[in-house]
Amino acid sequence: MYAAVVKYIILTLCAQTNAWSIHDYNAERANLLEQEFGLQVGGNIKLSDKENSANNVLMRYKRQEVDESFQNPKYFNFSRHYFTYKNDIEKSKVYHIIRKMPKGAALHVHSSLMLSAERLLALTYEDHLYACFADDDLKLHFSANVPQRPCHTKWQLLSVLRNETEDIVSFDENIKKHFTLYSQNEKDLKFDINYVWERFNKVCRTIKDLIAYRPVREKFFYEALKEFYNDKIMYIELRSGLPILYELDGTLHDLTHMPRIYHRVAKRFKEDHPDFIGIKLIVTIHRAKDINKIRKSIEIARRIKEELPDMFAGFDLVGQEDLGKPLVDFYPALTEAKDDINFYFHGGETNWFGSSTDENLADAILLGSKRIGHGYALIKHPSLLAAVKAKDIALEVNVISNVVLSLVSDVRNHPLASYLAFGMPVVLSSDDPGAWGADPLSHDFYISFVGIASKRANLRMLKQLVINSIKYSALNASEKLEAFKKLFKEWDDFIEDLSTNFR
Amino acid sequence: MYAAVVKYIILTLCAQTNAWSIHDYNAERANLLEQEFGLQVGGNIKLSDKENSANNVLMRYKRQEVDESFQNPKYFNFSRHYFTYKNDIEKSKVYHIIRKMPKGAALHVHSSLMLSAERLLALTYEDHLYACFADDDLKLHFSANVPQRPCHTKWQLLSVLRNETEDIVSFDENIKKHFTLYSQNEKDLKFDINYVWERFNKVCRTIKDLIAYRPVREKFFYEALKEFYNDKIMYIELRSGLPILYELDGTLHDLTHMPRIYHRVAKRFKEDHPDFIGIKLIVTIHRAKDINKIRKSIEIARRIKEELPDMFAGFDLVGQEDLGKPLVDFYPALTEAKDDINFYFHGGETNWFGSSTDENLADAILLGSKRIGHGYALIKHPSLLAAVKAKDIALEVNVISNVVLSLVSDVRNHPLASYLAFGMPVVLSSDDPGAWGADPLSHDFYISFVGIASKRANLRMLKQLVINSIKYSALNASEKLEAFKKLFKEWDDFIEDLSTNFR
Ligand SMILES: [Zn+2]
Ligand SMILES: [Zn+2]
Repeated sequence: MYAAVVKYIILTLCAQTNAWSIHDYNAERANLLEQEFGLQVGGNIKLSDKENSANNVLMRYKRQEVDESFQNPKYFNFSRHYFTYKNDIEKSKVYHIIRKMPKGAALHVHSSLMLSAERLLALTYEDHLYACFADDDLKLHFSANVPQRPCHTKWQLLSVLRNETEDIVSFDENIKKHFTLYSQNEKDLKFDINYVWERFNKVCRTIKDLIAYRPVREKFFYEALKEFYNDKIMYIELRSGLPILYELDGTLHDLTHMPRIYHRVAKRFKEDHPDFIGIKLIVTIHRAKDINKIRKSIEIARRIKEELPDMFAGFDLVGQEDLGKPLVDFYPALTEAKDDINFYFHGGETNWFGSSTDENLADAILLGSKRIGHGYALIKHPSLLAAVKAKDIALEVNVISNVVLSLVSDVRNHPLASYLAFGMPVVLSSDDPGAWGADPLSHDFYISFVGIASKRANLRMLKQLVINSIKYSALNASEKLEAFKKLFKEWDDFIEDLSTNFR
Repeated sequence: MYAAVVKYIILTLCAQTNAWSIHDYNAERANLLEQEFGLQVGGNIKLSDKENSANNVLMRYKRQEVDESFQNPKYFNFSRHYFTYKNDIEKSKVYHIIRKMPKGAALHVHSSLMLSAERLLALTYEDHLYACFADDDLKLHFSANVPQRPCHTKWQLLSVLRNETEDIVSFDENIKKHFTLYSQNEKDLKFDINYVWERFNKVCRTIKDLIAYRPVREKFFYEALKEFYNDKIMYIELRSGLPILYELDGTLHDLTHMPRIYHRVAKRFKEDHPDFIGIKLIVTIHRAKDINKIRKSIEIARRIKEELPDMFAGFDLVGQEDLGKPLVDFYPALTEAKDDINFYFHGGETNWFGSSTDENLADAILLGSKRIGHGYALIKHPSLLAAVKAKDIALEVNVISNVVLSLVSDVRNHPLASYLAFGMPVVLSSDDPGAWGADPLSHDFYISFVGIASKRANLRMLKQLVINSIKYSALNASEKLEAFKKLFKEWDDFIEDLSTNFR
């Protein structure tokens, strides 16, 4: 592709020596910009007449919003932290259009952080929930009797505490704070990456406490699917570390119980919502573990693949990349598995150019990863960029996650702008939308479309991104066919609605 | 280049289906990373034995500094605003090495903002300087009698005010504030781009007031050359809007007087410092003007070219790109001139992807610009990126300027990282070092080398950047030869010093 571009440019530009007429110049200029327009994600999409008129509606609103920000960068532009403008997104017409758009699949989501703090709070109204408030920390545990787990203060029934309080609203607000990184406090927005990850890990621990109880986990998961479904998502690939679940009497389930619950709840959800396609599972383990733990985790993945082949997608390593071990440390375990287990590695979720974290990108590619989670640092690696393009490895980009977890503040500096412009295989996802109070996908789509992509990027790009989410999924060929059939049906309804009701 | 890379990757990667031995894997991996290392700026440089041992010294310190930041991102990393760590740079060994390194040329500098606030303050001790303090503003004027220019308050002799004050230190500190954007006040660091540019324009006005007086302008320019020379810069290409200068009695000089002063002062400076090569001039005009003003400015450029052919380099447009007119508006005037006047256009100094500012990059290329000032947005334009590479148009990258003028906060997100990795024709410069209290080049080099480039980037990259500064200058062939001769002599001394005195 690049060679062709370079040749074209040399031919058309270097040959020019005399002054052009303004007419020739404008033609040449339009040609050059048009050529770039064709290279970008969605550049090959042809729109129908209906889609073109829907696109006109969409682009009228988009241009309005971009122009307002351009003229008044002081107000609502995308250069600030997501938390500072999150509540203003509701005001955007483009957002409301995107909210209605069928989005296909969410391919990069961690299962325990899918659900909003509001819905998590509702789950704390379940019976038998004990709480341990200590310092800045909240531990939770469901139990028939006072939990035996250590607590610096005292385990107390949450229902009792809630009944005793005079102000339930602020009591609940306080609990909700433990379920989200969201804060309107300026000072919470500018800590360094390690500090943010510490806060993030704390939120994860409290939520995992809440949902380690089997019956609540089932409710949690059904609710999470509902939030995704309501955001027009038809299919999800979950990353899950397969936690041990327990019953009220303290009985512990074994590791393979969790996947069975995913399977059972998703099946029930599908029965209740026939246009939902389902879920698949990417088994994960923390990258801080040693190689023997990794081997065991791959073994469990194999067992799940055998027991639930339709639901199994692959394997991944999680946790802050900078502080964890690089992929290359696990090479012996990973290379043994690469022929029967598909990899979906996180890679290059870092700003440290030339560090071992950064080089995970090379290992993800060499180990045959089907997609790469984030790939944030890939823009600094011309050879790896070319390899990802040539091998058609999709990049799972999670913009809001990268902002909240301190990789970038002004999203216009996010490499997604270049990935979209270069026509890289991109899918948009949300990583942990519950942890930052984002929509399952709509906020990420909105910010990417209005804040990051070219002002000229239009419905063609959105459509390609939606198509990519199925194209690069772990669905098999016939599943993809079914998914596309449903998707295009929904897409047509969306276009109909947009071109008729939004004028 | 890309085609070759893609082919290589496909051959070496896609052919692999079985598990590799760890030995083969590591070889393959090293090969892939080494290949990228070869692509980057400096990848073709071969170091001598002496240079290799100097490189070992340099890299030992660089690795130390990067590793410390990686482990403690809370302290001194490059993710914060330049002003917050500017005073810590002194503590860095790498900085002190870079400070001693001969840097060749500074190719992107605006003449009135070359000098530090400290030296500007010293110039306010000259006789006959009147000041008008009004609100947040400071106007200055040299005059035999009270200036006739309007003043909301009152014109007063600065020497009188200074004599009357009880605390000269804070009096002078207050004056210095009008000469710089530098501030340690957190709230000054996070305003939007238009606000920062307003403050910037105000600083420019006060400084221009001070140096519009002919004798002070001469001192100013000599002092500026000295600061650059002391930072190991041997040659400068100045951008100047050719202000009208005046004498104490109010006599105004004509537009061509300013270039004659540049010529005369530079000649004197060269006599005093024989290893200094000289300066060339890029005539500029503000992009807010209309096309007739542009035509006139080009006419003046032609006259200067005729009168001082050795000193004349070319023509450019300046001012905040987002708010000014796009290049395409001036197409008729520019295309007429492009055969006898070289262009050095600012282009793509913006975060607004797909805006008219952003498209200036296309016009700069189509109009045959010899270099591009900033090119910040180029990373979002694959075709233009390929064109710039193919036509070998140098990018004048000014990192600190981009931070201070609000394009990016964490410099690791600056596109320079990619430009260096892609082996683009890059030169480093400082835009307006006086306005932000930066070294003429050392701070920009230091931040680029330690904060932006790969951890593995070494002396080869620095050497290439220094070579580029002469290679992409407006010097003619024989001037370049002379410059390289002097440069390599200085370079050898630097290497000798580094490999013997810094161990
Ligand atoms: Zn993730
Ligand atoms: Zn400039």
